[in-house]
Amino acid sequence: MADYREMWKELDMDLEKHDGLCEVLPMFYDEVYLSQENRPENMNYYNFVISEVHGLRIKELQDSKQEGKKVIGSFCVYVPDEITLALNCIPVGICSGSQFWVPDGEKLLPRNTCPLIKASIGAKLSKTCPYFQSCDVVVGETTCDGKKKAWEILKDYMDVYVMDLPQMKREKDKIHWIDEIKMYKDLLEEKTGIKLSFENLKEKIELVNKKRRTLKRLYNFRKYDPVPISGKDALLVSQIAFYDDINRFIEMTNKLCDELDERVKNGEGVFEKNTPRIMITGTPMSIPNWKIHHIVETSGGVVVCEETCTGTRYFENEVDENANTIEEQFENLANRYLGINCACFTPNKGRVEDILNYVEEYKVDAVIYNSLQFCSTYSIEYKSVEKALKEKGIPVIMIETDYSEEDTGQIKTRVEALIEMIKEKKGVTA
Amino acid sequence: MADYREMWKELDMDLEKHDGLCEVLPMFYDEVYLSQENRPENMNYYNFVISEVHGLRIKELQDSKQEGKKVIGSFCVYVPDEITLALNCIPVGICSGSQFWVPDGEKLLPRNTCPLIKASIGAKLSKTCPYFQSCDVVVGETTCDGKKKAWEILKDYMDVYVMDLPQMKREKDKIHWIDEIKMYKDLLEEKTGIKLSFENLKEKIELVNKKRRTLKRLYNFRKYDPVPISGKDALLVSQIAFYDDINRFIEMTNKLCDELDERVKNGEGVFEKNTPRIMITGTPMSIPNWKIHHIVETSGGVVVCEETCTGTRYFENEVDENANTIEEQFENLANRYLGINCACFTPNKGRVEDILNYVEEYKVDAVIYNSLQFCSTYSIEYKSVEKALKEKGIPVIMIETDYSEEDTGQIKTRVEALIEMIKEKKGVTA
Repeated sequence: MADYREMWKELDMDLEKHDGLCEVLPMFYDEVYLSQENRPENMNYYNFVISEVHGLRIKELQDSKQEGKKVIGSFCVYVPDEITLALNCIPVGICSGSQFWVPDGEKLLPRNTCPLIKASIGAKLSKTCPYFQSCDVVVGETTCDGKKKAWEILKDYMDVYVMDLPQMKREKDKIHWIDEIKMYKDLLEEKTGIKLSFENLKEKIELVNKKRRTLKRLYNFRKYDPVPISGKDALLVSQIAFYDDINRFIEMTNKLCDELDERVKNGEGVFEKNTPRIMITGTPMSIPNWKIHHIVETSGGVVVCEETCTGTRYFENEVDENANTIEEQFENLANRYLGINCACFTPNKGRVEDILNYVEEYKVDAVIYNSLQFCSTYSIEYKSVEKALKEKGIPVIMIETDYSEEDTGQIKTRVEALIEMIKEKKGVTA
Repeated sequence: MADYREMWKELDMDLEKHDGLCEVLPMFYDEVYLSQENRPENMNYYNFVISEVHGLRIKELQDSKQEGKKVIGSFCVYVPDEITLALNCIPVGICSGSQFWVPDGEKLLPRNTCPLIKASIGAKLSKTCPYFQSCDVVVGETTCDGKKKAWEILKDYMDVYVMDLPQMKREKDKIHWIDEIKMYKDLLEEKTGIKLSFENLKEKIELVNKKRRTLKRLYNFRKYDPVPISGKDALLVSQIAFYDDINRFIEMTNKLCDELDERVKNGEGVFEKNTPRIMITGTPMSIPNWKIHHIVETSGGVVVCEETCTGTRYFENEVDENANTIEEQFENLANRYLGINCACFTPNKGRVEDILNYVEEYKVDAVIYNSLQFCSTYSIEYKSVEKALKEKGIPVIMIETDYSEEDTGQIKTRVEALIEMIKEKKGVTA
């Protein structure tokens, strides 16, 4: 990795502190990922991406910047990548998933703020995230109180633009959201000096849809029993989708899917048939937050679906490609993005419907409702999800946690009990 | 109070549980309020109002309902009373300030939700708040994540309407807010069968402005040294403003002000000259939340101003009375309400300016930043307020607390230290 030190220095990073981070991550990755058995061979690509997470990909971003491209950071699946790409910019998801950044975040944010927000602010403050350092502008949104107010703080450290996501989904809110997408386009036009064209946007709408279909293809393999890919690996692919080069990502993920196709044909899986099938629903999991997946898959279960922003919410629903004018493209974009059922909306009945559908589709035995600590919207919505699942006879447990490892033992005990219960129900002997 | 049991029963209240509440409140009020020395005589009216808080005022509401009026509950200073009054309805503030209701709220809401929200939901659930029981509809808003999601739960128990407050204050947000005010008007027109007229609205705009001027008059007396009214008493008047009959409230509060006028002329105060002057800024204090005021005023200080929704935010800025059309009236209403600087907005620089102005106007020695637990917007905004105050040399402490009494000793210790420090600075001997 020594080659990159010069680049990191140019990115105004705190090299000493960053060394600390670089020491921990590979060990952690080895323990969580490389210890898995029966992994698809094509996961090697993602292993490589992770090993170069602060290296090669950053180098690529820098090279693109040399060619005049802009790098746009975002924290949320509502920021439309289609616009970013169509204006010759590179979108990167920069939500942070490591406890490493939390203490720095707590210098400016109250301790009882969600760890994702604290880690994101801490990543910038500590100058140890080369993605943050590469961004020409970061795009926040008004999805929750914590983020909304955190952008005000982040503005002291870098260029921050905020999109105002509506809180309801009425016709007037859609009009408001179309307008916000246009304003985002205006921002990028100003930053790049490029004018958005119908053709460019059409091309990128098709490209991002293609990426969504690829992820959907991947997830579809998780519906089989035995499941040909672990939940941890599927999560990793999803996480990498947020910052990898889009064309390469599609190509490599389709290769992985071809391999999974073979596995399914041969009845091959990563876990035995009848392994208890868990769906996780709730808040996003950013790299390297693999906590719950790791617990489930070292406790006798397998995660087969994530109804989260690093899961189905990221790729379900495509943008309608039928449009004759830019105006219609904007409306199609707004429709697609407002089709995401985040708990930030009121009401948000669509999410319960999604969860019930996925339970059927992915043949889910039990649901883990995972909420990052101090996330009011998701934690309050738990009751309605719990009620709907119980009516269908699907067991559900709520796990509220942060990025620390302090509660791992306690969570493991609860997850093991859940999995034992499923095994008994299914008549699977341990 | 025996006379009211029949009424409470008709309101479908849980009489037994309500008895428990009725037993505690008067004792608590005696301790906090009647123990004060040098109170203005005209505070007797407010003593009476509190003694009849679940009695006479509820009887009045019931009588008004008999005459065809509707009772509209709200939780926030953004719901425009002018519209409510102009459509022959009675607005009542129903935010709840007692620990009594928190356990019932926690049956449906996560424990790490703000106590105001938990108590409000608990008040309805436990059927022990006759205001909730009297409401024909309650009007929630999207000011924070906790409230926004709590309304979804409350909807299972009563008629709830939600106004979508914007999160920014751009021109487009004002247009959105005007529309929300119109939709609120439509709701009440439908409920009452009455059509809003320019004349009715004009009259009520003037009436509510008059109430605001009365509160402003009251607050102006707090700028004197010695201060002629305690912070606790001023807070009580503010709290009662949210549910008392508006005309009577204006009349009685002006009477109180006349008395304060005399006091000022005679140099009379409730505390000695040079008593350390504290401003409280932050989250609202609903009846019977007098916790911080009581601590300050039994620790050698006096609260001279509240930059809160139960303080200046409630009465500062009048609605412009110059309007020739209903359309203009709506715009004036939107302008006034969007002039309130709540931490739910991003950015919210106006609040810091307000705080600095009040520090000058009320000759404030130190500021207590009071945030209800788990209120992200206010707790995150603390850093910017702290910075601005420190630059002006004004001491500030942050107190994050709930409705319980567990931390009272600890808070008292911190407040006493603050007050000692001010005394030394002012050269006041203890």
